[in-house]
Amino acid sequence: MLTVADYVEAAPGRVPENVWCYFEGGANDEVTLRANVAAYGRWRLRPRMLVDVTEITLATTLLGTEVSMPFGIAPFAMQRLICEEGEAATARAAAGANALMTVSTLTTRTHGEISAAAPGGPRWLQLYVLHDRGRTLAHMQEAQAAGYSALVLTVDLPYVGRRERDLRLGFQNPPPDLHLPYAKLFEATPALTWRDLEWVRGQMRLPLVIKGILTREDATLAVEHGADAVWVSNHGGRQLDGVAAGLDALPEVAEAVGGRCEVYVDGGIRRGIDVLKALALGANAAFAARPFAGALAVDGSDGVAHVLSLLRGEIALGLGLLGCTSPAQVARSHVEPTLPYDSPA
Amino acid sequence: MLTVADYVEAAPGRVPENVWCYFEGGANDEVTLRANVAAYGRWRLRPRMLVDVTEITLATTLLGTEVSMPFGIAPFAMQRLICEEGEAATARAAAGANALMTVSTLTTRTHGEISAAAPGGPRWLQLYVLHDRGRTLAHMQEAQAAGYSALVLTVDLPYVGRRERDLRLGFQNPPPDLHLPYAKLFEATPALTWRDLEWVRGQMRLPLVIKGILTREDATLAVEHGADAVWVSNHGGRQLDGVAAGLDALPEVAEAVGGRCEVYVDGGIRRGIDVLKALALGANAAFAARPFAGALAVDGSDGVAHVLSLLRGEIALGLGLLGCTSPAQVARSHVEPTLPYDSPA
Amino acid sequence: MLTVADYVEAAPGRVPENVWCYFEGGANDEVTLRANVAAYGRWRLRPRMLVDVTEITLATTLLGTEVSMPFGIAPFAMQRLICEEGEAATARAAAGANALMTVSTLTTRTHGEISAAAPGGPRWLQLYVLHDRGRTLAHMQEAQAAGYSALVLTVDLPYVGRRERDLRLGFQNPPPDLHLPYAKLFEATPALTWRDLEWVRGQMRLPLVIKGILTREDATLAVEHGADAVWVSNHGGRQLDGVAAGLDALPEVAEAVGGRCEVYVDGGIRRGIDVLKALALGANAAFAARPFAGALAVDGSDGVAHVLSLLRGEIALGLGLLGCTSPAQVARSHVEPTLPYDSPA
Amino acid sequence: MLTVADYVEAAPGRVPENVWCYFEGGANDEVTLRANVAAYGRWRLRPRMLVDVTEITLATTLLGTEVSMPFGIAPFAMQRLICEEGEAATARAAAGANALMTVSTLTTRTHGEISAAAPGGPRWLQLYVLHDRGRTLAHMQEAQAAGYSALVLTVDLPYVGRRERDLRLGFQNPPPDLHLPYAKLFEATPALTWRDLEWVRGQMRLPLVIKGILTREDATLAVEHGADAVWVSNHGGRQLDGVAAGLDALPEVAEAVGGRCEVYVDGGIRRGIDVLKALALGANAAFAARPFAGALAVDGSDGVAHVLSLLRGEIALGLGLLGCTSPAQVARSHVEPTLPYDSPA
Repeated sequence: MLTVADYVEAAPGRVPENVWCYFEGGANDEVTLRANVAAYGRWRLRPRMLVDVTEITLATTLLGTEVSMPFGIAPFAMQRLICEEGEAATARAAAGANALMTVSTLTTRTHGEISAAAPGGPRWLQLYVLHDRGRTLAHMQEAQAAGYSALVLTVDLPYVGRRERDLRLGFQNPPPDLHLPYAKLFEATPALTWRDLEWVRGQMRLPLVIKGILTREDATLAVEHGADAVWVSNHGGRQLDGVAAGLDALPEVAEAVGGRCEVYVDGGIRRGIDVLKALALGANAAFAARPFAGALAVDGSDGVAHVLSLLRGEIALGLGLLGCTSPAQVARSHVEPTLPYDSPA
Repeated sequence: MLTVADYVEAAPGRVPENVWCYFEGGANDEVTLRANVAAYGRWRLRPRMLVDVTEITLATTLLGTEVSMPFGIAPFAMQRLICEEGEAATARAAAGANALMTVSTLTTRTHGEISAAAPGGPRWLQLYVLHDRGRTLAHMQEAQAAGYSALVLTVDLPYVGRRERDLRLGFQNPPPDLHLPYAKLFEATPALTWRDLEWVRGQMRLPLVIKGILTREDATLAVEHGADAVWVSNHGGRQLDGVAAGLDALPEVAEAVGGRCEVYVDGGIRRGIDVLKALALGANAAFAARPFAGALAVDGSDGVAHVLSLLRGEIALGLGLLGCTSPAQVARSHVEPTLPYDSPA
Repeated sequence: MLTVADYVEAAPGRVPENVWCYFEGGANDEVTLRANVAAYGRWRLRPRMLVDVTEITLATTLLGTEVSMPFGIAPFAMQRLICEEGEAATARAAAGANALMTVSTLTTRTHGEISAAAPGGPRWLQLYVLHDRGRTLAHMQEAQAAGYSALVLTVDLPYVGRRERDLRLGFQNPPPDLHLPYAKLFEATPALTWRDLEWVRGQMRLPLVIKGILTREDATLAVEHGADAVWVSNHGGRQLDGVAAGLDALPEVAEAVGGRCEVYVDGGIRRGIDVLKALALGANAAFAARPFAGALAVDGSDGVAHVLSLLRGEIALGLGLLGCTSPAQVARSHVEPTLPYDSPA
Repeated sequence: MLTVADYVEAAPGRVPENVWCYFEGGANDEVTLRANVAAYGRWRLRPRMLVDVTEITLATTLLGTEVSMPFGIAPFAMQRLICEEGEAATARAAAGANALMTVSTLTTRTHGEISAAAPGGPRWLQLYVLHDRGRTLAHMQEAQAAGYSALVLTVDLPYVGRRERDLRLGFQNPPPDLHLPYAKLFEATPALTWRDLEWVRGQMRLPLVIKGILTREDATLAVEHGADAVWVSNHGGRQLDGVAAGLDALPEVAEAVGGRCEVYVDGGIRRGIDVLKALALGANAAFAARPFAGALAVDGSDGVAHVLSLLRGEIALGLGLLGCTSPAQVARSHVEPTLPYDSPA
């Protein structure tokens, strides 16, 4: 297990196929799922030499949360299906690395259990805004009480995408015997509009991240409606197939935001240099989920810790070889588009 | 059978190979046949979030014909070769879904039989203009009498394309024992010119669609000669190999038309998002044939109904995830070109 | 045998492998050899509809030579290695179709024998200009006496390219027991310069074609030095590997020539639509060699006749489907570049 | 063994797999390793005809060192692992061809032994600048005493790249029983800055080459800090994966240098035409290492001599077919970008 890809590739077989499909698959033809990974190949790095890179620090602050590196764990649901300890396993590893973990509303552990398992770790809550505003508020308050330090509102799920791999393999979602303490707080949200953000901001002082933005138009609206961060995401290729890869949408979003709030991106991260490319294209941090699903499947909490360690090492080495000593030094000039090769075979 | 592609892939083997080649194949090297499908990969979707998409309607009106969605069945010939009930099977499924069916001149059922099998369904006539104008007129009148509500004049068959798959497998076209009630109304039309459109328009009050246009120049001429709609098509890749995919030709045609008449496109549609891309690039509706040939082969009329239902579902879900509540809301800004990926493998 | 490709693919095995390599192979890695074929995929056709194409003629005149179509046989050497009758077989088929044949200096039949085998057929002489001007002049005069109506001077062989396929398979060039009546008239020509063209033009009244031009700079020089035609060619990918495909170099050459002389192209032609693309990009005619080597191997003179017939048929059908009635009508607007497809697989 | 690729492909199996991985592999996913080779396919040659190319010379002078051709041997370490004679074998072959050899600091033979084995051959020293300046100076002086005529300072190794092939196969670097006379002179150099160049230049009169530059910014700095040559290199794809291929970075570096010092490039050279492309894009010379590692593995010093001879032959033939008689005549107009092909398969 030398690379993140090793975990992703080793995971099938550790979990029943008709369960693993849920974590691995995307919507429809999975074009966007594949694009998420492939997009990183469109950019190459421009390293600078003869810079003193003896001292390298990866630490950064995201919406006031201090973390050990500009990379965190994106929300993914129902982790107990992969490993008995579930989200607590992930949380322990993340806290041990002081890495940010975003907890899904569809967690199999309560926010209290997660906090108890890994006190003090940096954590944010992924949530939906429901018709039932009372429940939504209670959910946010429970997360805050558990020490979560920001809200990540998912906005790309007015309807649930069609995940045909699940249908073919007969994955029942959610599995009938799986305890999901906040199952009632998961809801497709076709009626949600920008106005509803104002309600969230009026209820809570926690920073608010809008997750699921793919266009400059929506990025601008998010800033205008008071978002503290825009999270560029296509929901892991699980919602509308055929949209841009996360990295492909990042430049236009970052340009539209223009520094008025933080910007994150997820989808397809497998290497430390992928994180560096995201930073160069305007992200404050990048997130990934599938590598951690794979790590949980292969080796539980230790696997997650190893993946975090591998990526941390790759980011640090990459920074040094790029001629930078901190994430903040990574600039647009450190990347350029990769031209397609001719292949008259 | 979860997707349209499932039907297309399952069809071979349900029909003798030397017959199925006729439905599946294209001209010469089938470059254009493959391009029709691949062209959809050149465009990606730009979804908008936090729009109220609770109420979604797919209904639209095409040249006065009210249909349940902006997608219909393109003409394809000799359906009895696939399923005993032939065009009547297709017509029943289409009428059941209130989806538009375009009936080929090379139908194995008379227009009267089709109407009787599926009364009231929205149907148009695909036809050729013959040297023998009397026969042409009679054909149009018979279709009108059967309730067909528009004429779709095929103009890309001055000569019949060379379909080498048929030649290799020995498909005899038309099969000697197949009853084709309008066989005499099929004719390569090398002498046909724009002037002949005026004759059609002088004879009939039905709206006139010009099918087989691939250039801005011809789109402009069609409008100038009074076409009510331009149908962008390369005849399913069966005429001149090496021309543009339907979707690739659509933008220049739509721009040339500039809203002066309706625009349709066919070729390569396999997914609901393909229809959405066509709408975004200027089409009022999209059409497909091979998915329905496959559906007929696999499951007769029920197969056709299922494919219509699958596509309807995908279009509706796609609209919602795109942030639109009706076909008319799909705009050019909902798509952008997909850049090629680098692959230095 | 329905297509030209059928002959090309069937040929190996009909001739000993260590001989066939000579006809099939190119220089070094054969990048240019493959590019010659692939280049045609970079352009797609733009067909025009509703043009009266009842009467189609392919006949044209090339430097005063009347031929049945804008496509001919490029020079290729030592045809007796493929079929006992050698160049006479090719000549009979070409004359039967009134198609232009260019006879290689490395012919295994004398010009007189070729003329006797196929009197009256349109034929040109491919030649080199030697240090020994007397021999060169005698060669030109012998060809003229045999009824050849133009001289095609090959200028891309200052040294012989490295054909590694031949080296690997042990092809001895020329084979020791093969009679080559003009073997002494073949010579690498590193000292040849533009001034030498003036000498040729001063000796003979036959039109002079300069074969082997790949740049606008050399095309301009050829016109300035009195060439009657420029033949765009990379010598079938057999000289400098890594140069442009014939079709790729054609547009810049045609633009530089600007109608001041005729323009031809060879390399990679396998279909009638390839010829149409060459015409659209500025060629007066296109030429091919390997299809005829394959045809000779499979079926001797009859094979050559069949390939000529197949291409003639495809050119005629393609013209009609393009909305043209003669080669002269094919214009730049009948083609456009094909965009690369995205393939994030 | 007809080509350089023959040697590269034949080498595995001649050396234990867990040793050969060190020579063959690159960093991480080896994207840059593959890109180095593929980049040459992005450019095609534009040959000029009817130039007198009877007399061709490849000889050139690099920083005052007279060499037989504009191509040399890039530094690669620990050659005794491949062949008992080690660097002496390479040096004998290089001297025999009067080709430039750059000797790695991680040589298994002393500079004195190399000089004794191949007196008079053109050789340069690859080195690092250490914290311990005394040792660095002694190293430079020893090389100078051995007749080395320039210093090649590697600047792209602030940290050692992660070569996962070595990790997977258990290659121990350096092998415990391998004598490396200058092992203590190898050091990752994270604190090195442009100012340190001034120290080198103050100590030695030998010309100074800065190796490992990939951007116009650093090329400009190198010139400003007195470099006599800039060597464009990504360290054979062994340092930061995801950076540009050597050839891809060459144009911007050459433009920034603007003739103010010499420019070299390495990475991916397999053919004589690759060298010609590098010259056309602004290099004074190109270098390669892996072909010589392969040659050593297959046939020791004779293999190296054969690879040098093959490349020399290909460069000479390529020059002639390009219409040039010396490396200095190869200009930017002799190459152009190769457009990607469409492949709707």
